[in-house]
Amino acid sequence: QTVESDERALLNVDEGIKFSKDSLFLMNLRFRMQNRAGFNSIYSGSNLGIEQFEMRVRRLRLRLDGYVLSPKFQYYIQLAFSKADLDLETGDIAQPIRDAILYYTVNDNFYIGFGQSKLPGNRERVISSGNLQFADRSIANSLFTLDRDFGIFGYYTLRTKSTAIFLLKGAISSGDGRNASAINNGLSFTGRLEALPFGLFKNSGDYSEGDLEFEIKPKLSIGITLSENQKAVRTGGQLGPELFGSRTLNSLIVDAMFKYQGWGVMSEYMSRSSRDPITRNDAGDIRFVVVGHGVNTHLSRMISK
Amino acid sequence: QTVESDERALLNVDEGIKFSKDSLFLMNLRFRMQNRAGFNSIYSGSNLGIEQFEMRVRRLRLRLDGYVLSPKFQYYIQLAFSKADLDLETGDIAQPIRDAILYYTVNDNFYIGFGQSKLPGNRERVISSGNLQFADRSIANSLFTLDRDFGIFGYYTLRTKSTAIFLLKGAISSGDGRNASAINNGLSFTGRLEALPFGLFKNSGDYSEGDLEFEIKPKLSIGITLSENQKAVRTGGQLGPELFGSRTLNSLIVDAMFKYQGWGVMSEYMSRSSRDPITRNDAGDIRFVVVGHGVNTHLSRMISK
Amino acid sequence: QTVESDERALLNVDEGIKFSKDSLFLMNLRFRMQNRAGFNSIYSGSNLGIEQFEMRVRRLRLRLDGYVLSPKFQYYIQLAFSKADLDLETGDIAQPIRDAILYYTVNDNFYIGFGQSKLPGNRERVISSGNLQFADRSIANSLFTLDRDFGIFGYYTLRTKSTAIFLLKGAISSGDGRNASAINNGLSFTGRLEALPFGLFKNSGDYSEGDLEFEIKPKLSIGITLSENQKAVRTGGQLGPELFGSRTLNSLIVDAMFKYQGWGVMSEYMSRSSRDPITRNDAGDIRFVVVGHGVNTHLSRMISK
Repeated sequence: QTVESDERALLNVDEGIKFSKDSLFLMNLRFRMQNRAGFNSIYSGSNLGIEQFEMRVRRLRLRLDGYVLSPKFQYYIQLAFSKADLDLETGDIAQPIRDAILYYTVNDNFYIGFGQSKLPGNRERVISSGNLQFADRSIANSLFTLDRDFGIFGYYTLRTKSTAIFLLKGAISSGDGRNASAINNGLSFTGRLEALPFGLFKNSGDYSEGDLEFEIKPKLSIGITLSENQKAVRTGGQLGPELFGSRTLNSLIVDAMFKYQGWGVMSEYMSRSSRDPITRNDAGDIRFVVVGHGVNTHLSRMISK
Repeated sequence: QTVESDERALLNVDEGIKFSKDSLFLMNLRFRMQNRAGFNSIYSGSNLGIEQFEMRVRRLRLRLDGYVLSPKFQYYIQLAFSKADLDLETGDIAQPIRDAILYYTVNDNFYIGFGQSKLPGNRERVISSGNLQFADRSIANSLFTLDRDFGIFGYYTLRTKSTAIFLLKGAISSGDGRNASAINNGLSFTGRLEALPFGLFKNSGDYSEGDLEFEIKPKLSIGITLSENQKAVRTGGQLGPELFGSRTLNSLIVDAMFKYQGWGVMSEYMSRSSRDPITRNDAGDIRFVVVGHGVNTHLSRMISK
Repeated sequence: QTVESDERALLNVDEGIKFSKDSLFLMNLRFRMQNRAGFNSIYSGSNLGIEQFEMRVRRLRLRLDGYVLSPKFQYYIQLAFSKADLDLETGDIAQPIRDAILYYTVNDNFYIGFGQSKLPGNRERVISSGNLQFADRSIANSLFTLDRDFGIFGYYTLRTKSTAIFLLKGAISSGDGRNASAINNGLSFTGRLEALPFGLFKNSGDYSEGDLEFEIKPKLSIGITLSENQKAVRTGGQLGPELFGSRTLNSLIVDAMFKYQGWGVMSEYMSRSSRDPITRNDAGDIRFVVVGHGVNTHLSRMISK
C-alpha cells in the first residue's frame, strides 16, 4: 500500500513499473482503475424501489512520474480517461490532463512546483482517490473545494527543537481551474499552514484516511487554508459553470486529522464568501457564486493489519 | 501472430512489451494502429467516378493488460484515440475507454469479470479487430451487435468425456453501452452457449477469422446468444442515438465457425425485436428501435503458412 | 539534446525509455510537457496594464516510436492531451492523434511513409516544438502552414560528387488535415526540394532553430515547396473552420536555414492563393480562404555550449 499525497512525485513505487537510467532519468508508469456498480434508491411514500443503476468505469488514470536530469527535478503527470474524469458528465470539453507539474527541490525543507496540480486546500481533496475511505468525496467537498489549478506552488517544512513540525504551503495560480484558457488578469492566492504537534505521521498518514499504520503514539495534524480568487468566472472559482461576470471569492478552510492505534478521525470545515455573489445577463438569467459553508467528518477504525 | 479473443487478459505476448515483478505484477503494453486510404465509387447512370476519398487513422489503440497481486487477478484496459474510436464520427462525447475490466480466475474452468468489455454476442464482434479478414465488420453487425457494456461477466468451460466442449458465457450489464451515465433501473441480461463438438481450435482459432493454423482435423463451433435489454434508451440498446422513451429489446443470435486445412467458414444470424419499437416526442418526431434481422457469411482460404 | 525533425522515427534516444526485443521490436516511450505562465499587455492610450494572464499546460505529448519485425518498418505515434493540442481551443472535436505513421525504408536514400504526419511544408512547422527558439511558432505560420495531413509520403536523398546534397520530399494526402472524415474526392499534392550546397548539418541542425552544434564551416539549406490542395473545405486547407463550398488552394513556400559558429538565421516566405476565395451560404454569410503571403525571419546566437 503506497500512500500518495498528490503533492510531489513518488520516487519509490511498490506497484506499477519503474524505469531508470543511471541517475539521469526515472519514470514510473502506473494506472488506477475504479469500476463501480451501484444503485440509487429513493424513498417516495410507500415505495422503496431502485431508481437507477449506476454501472460504469468511474476512474481510469494513467500516471507518469519520476525525474529528469537529476532527482532534484521531479515531474508528475496524470491523465484521466473516464467520462467523469474527462469532465464530460457536466461539461462538453474533454479534459484528460489532471496533473502536469514539474517540481524543483531546493533543499530538504523546501520544494517548489510549476504546472497544474491540486491546490493546498481541504484535506480530503488532497488525499488521493486511492486512499479515501468512501468511494467518493463528500458533498461539502464538491461545493467548496479549491480543486486543481495551474500556477506556482511552494512547500516548506519548518522543523522545531521539539517533535512539533509545521508545514507551510502556498500557491499563486490562475484561479480558473484545470486546463483553463486565458480569460482575464485575475489570479488566485492560496496559503495553508499545517501544525503537527506530535511529529510526522508514519508513511504520510496525515494524507490517507484510515490508520493503516496503527500509530503507536497519537498523531495530529491541524490545517488552515486561506484563499482569495480574484476575478473568478466560475461558480466555484476553479470549478462549476460560468458566471455572467467575474467575482472575487474568499475561502476559509480548517481541517484536522487524528490517528491513534487504528482509529482515525478526519474533520474539515469549508466556507466561501463573495461580496456580490449573484450575476445576471441581459435576459435576466441568474448564475451565482456558491457561497456558504460545509462540514465533513469521518471516524474510522482499522480492524487489523 | 497472437490471437486475441477480447475476453480475458493475455498472459503471453509475442508482440509488445512485457513487464513483470516476481509473480506479483505483470503489465503488457501494446498498441495497434490501422491506417486506411480508400475511395467510395458510386455508380450513377453513365458515371463510375470516385465519390469520396477516405484517408485516415481508422484505429489507434493502446492496451495495458496483465495481473496484480496474483495471476488470478487479471486486468485488461484498452484506450482508443482515433476519431471513429472515440465515437466522434457519430456523437460529440469523446469516449477513449473501450475496455476496463478486472477478471478473477475461480478455477481452470471458470472465471468472472467486472467492468467494461465486449458482451458475449455475435462472433464477429467479439473477434478482435486485429483478427478480422476485412478492414471492417459487416453492416449486419453494425445494426444488430450487442457491442460493449459495463457489468458482471461469467465464463464457464464444460468439458465432456468425449472431445466435445461446451462454453457457457453470461453477463448482467447496464444495457446502455460504453461509458454510459446512470439512467434508469433497467438492466441487460445476456446468455450464450457455444458447442465445439470436435474440441478446441488451435490457438483460439474459433475467435479469429482465417484458418491461420491449418487445422488438420475439422473444427466447428456453434454459438447461440439470447439477450434481453430492459428499459433501453438507445436505438440499438448499447449503441445508437437516444430514443424518446425506454423500450425492452430482445435479441437472438446464432453463429458458427468451421475450419479445416486452411478453409474457414463463418456465418452469423442476428435479430432484434421490441414490442413497440417506435418512440415519439411531443413535437411528433420519431425515433425507433432498430428491429429486424441480418445475416453475415464469410468463406476464406489460406494460401500457405 | 536530441534533435527531432518529425519526419521519421527515432532509433536512438537519449531521453525517454527504450524497449527492444532482439531485432524484432523496438519501442521508445517518451513524453513532452510545456507548462506556460505569461501575460498579455495591451497599450490602450495611457494604460499599459496586464490584460490577461495565460497560465496553462500548453503542450503535453506522449510518443511511441520504434520498429516492428525489422528496422526497415518504423512507426511513429504521437498523442497529445492539452486543450490546445486537442484542438479544443478553437473547435469542439477532441483530436488526440497528432502523428500515426508507418515508414518503410527502401534503401539508404529512400523511405516512404503511410499515415498521418507533418507535410513537407514550411521549415518552422516541421521543426519539432522541442527545438523552437520561441515558445510558439510565428503568426505567418499559423495562417499559411500546410500542417499535418493523412496520406502517402516519400523522402529521397540525392547525393552528388561534391559536398552538395539535395532532398526531395513529396506527399499525396487527403488535404483535410488531422483526423478528417471522408468528405469529397479532392486530394492534396505537395512537393518540396531542399538544396544543401555545403553538405549535411551536424545532428540534423537544418531542422532545429539554434546552432547548438556550433558549425565549424558554414552550412546552408534552401527549401522550396509547392502544394495544390484540390476541393479543400477548410479556410486554410488542412486547418481552419469549414468553408461553405470547396475550393482549390495553391501554396508556394520558400525558406532557408543558415548556421555558422553559433549563429543561426532562418527565414521563410509563404503564400496561398485560390481562384475564388470567398464562399457564401444561402443566408448570405461569408467564409473565405485565407489567401495572401507572410514572412518569418529569425536570427539567433548561441552564447556557449
